[in-house]
Amino acid sequence: MAESDVELSAALTDPAYREAVVDLLAVVAYGELSAFERLVEDATLAPSLADKLALAQMAGAELAKVQPLVDRIALLGTDPFVAMAPFHEALDEFHAHTAPADWYEGLVKAYVGDSLARDFYREIAAYLDPDTRDLVVSSVEEGLHSEFAIERIREAIAADAPLGGRLALWGRRIMGEALIQAQRVAADRDALTAFLVGGVDRPGMDLAALGRMFTRLTELHSDRMAELGLDA
Amino acid sequence: MAESDVELSAALTDPAYREAVVDLLAVVAYGELSAFERLVEDATLAPSLADKLALAQMAGAELAKVQPLVDRIALLGTDPFVAMAPFHEALDEFHAHTAPADWYEGLVKAYVGDSLARDFYREIAAYLDPDTRDLVVSSVEEGLHSEFAIERIREAIAADAPLGGRLALWGRRIMGEALIQAQRVAADRDALTAFLVGGVDRPGMDLAALGRMFTRLTELHSDRMAELGLDA
Repeated sequence: MAESDVELSAALTDPAYREAVVDLLAVVAYGELSAFERLVEDATLAPSLADKLALAQMAGAELAKVQPLVDRIALLGTDPFVAMAPFHEALDEFHAHTAPADWYEGLVKAYVGDSLARDFYREIAAYLDPDTRDLVVSSVEEGLHSEFAIERIREAIAADAPLGGRLALWGRRIMGEALIQAQRVAADRDALTAFLVGGVDRPGMDLAALGRMFTRLTELHSDRMAELGLDA
Repeated sequence: MAESDVELSAALTDPAYREAVVDLLAVVAYGELSAFERLVEDATLAPSLADKLALAQMAGAELAKVQPLVDRIALLGTDPFVAMAPFHEALDEFHAHTAPADWYEGLVKAYVGDSLARDFYREIAAYLDPDTRDLVVSSVEEGLHSEFAIERIREAIAADAPLGGRLALWGRRIMGEALIQAQRVAADRDALTAFLVGGVDRPGMDLAALGRMFTRLTELHSDRMAELGLDA
């Protein structure tokens, strides 16, 4: 594996930082894997085979990002699947509470959920060593397929105004559940939280900065809902 | 799309041949897409997250092959999803009759089903124009992931001899169902069948050659079952 020849950033010699990075990579990896599974399940709601293929391809793009994360966690000396275990509950609960009732709810979830994750990882990328940052940022790159979700949702709302009202509420629910589960992860995972708030020799976010970050995430979510033609 | 710049083989100007090629690409595409869906479903039976990821990656490899086939069918002037419709029934029935009862049946199905499809498409590749041949052959390339299925099945049989007996019967059932459905497709799709048996100005297989092909496919299946440690 070429990966094993990589010389890792010096930052990773700090055990606390390394633990936080393993947590971070593990939550991204399990997030992608569970998103893949749910998207494929949601694809069964597709009104046509072409739509099903498009959603399956969004799912495939998530799956393709898992292996590099798994490889990196292993390189950092941790069993990747053991590392993912602490995040099963939060992510599984997120999906259990946001199971789409129809195709359009599935599309909104795919688009909004994926975008939220990307915004969050980009926010924290500034605090990561370059190797980890590149890996995390490439893991949450926007796929070519989100255009498809945007188009389909807009078309449907244009043709059916009450659907827009329902999907707007649905978008809020996804955002709310994501925040609940993020809160839970932050409360459970000390190393990750300590990393986010920084340390003596490492920059991080103080509570005010964390607050501002959540404000930005909420604003980006609202912009996205508006782009879909929905009230946030 | 780069695809639209491709100059297609002269053979494709023959409408009967072109119709057969569209059928062939469509059955491969729908085969990959339905295999993807079933593999992801079967992955939920995995005993561990690592196993689940491995089967999901076999699924992802199938999915990745769909788009080039879809693009080619469109380039040949046919709606790809309309072209796939005549094959839904045979492939959906195949899957309905071979729904795995557990993880190991799922693994055997993944490995045997994928290999059978590959053997068949390689058999008929010789009768195709170069463009179509390259596309079909690359669409059924063996993934890196089948090693995983072979290893897991062998380990399990070594630890549990009665499982070997059950999986041997299961492998026969998959082969039998595949032949039943292939027969149905051959009976329904005149252009495809006419292509297989050839024509005045185009080589094909006579009935004896078709018989020999089925013998070879069955032998390859037996070899593969033996490789797994199973009686065919």
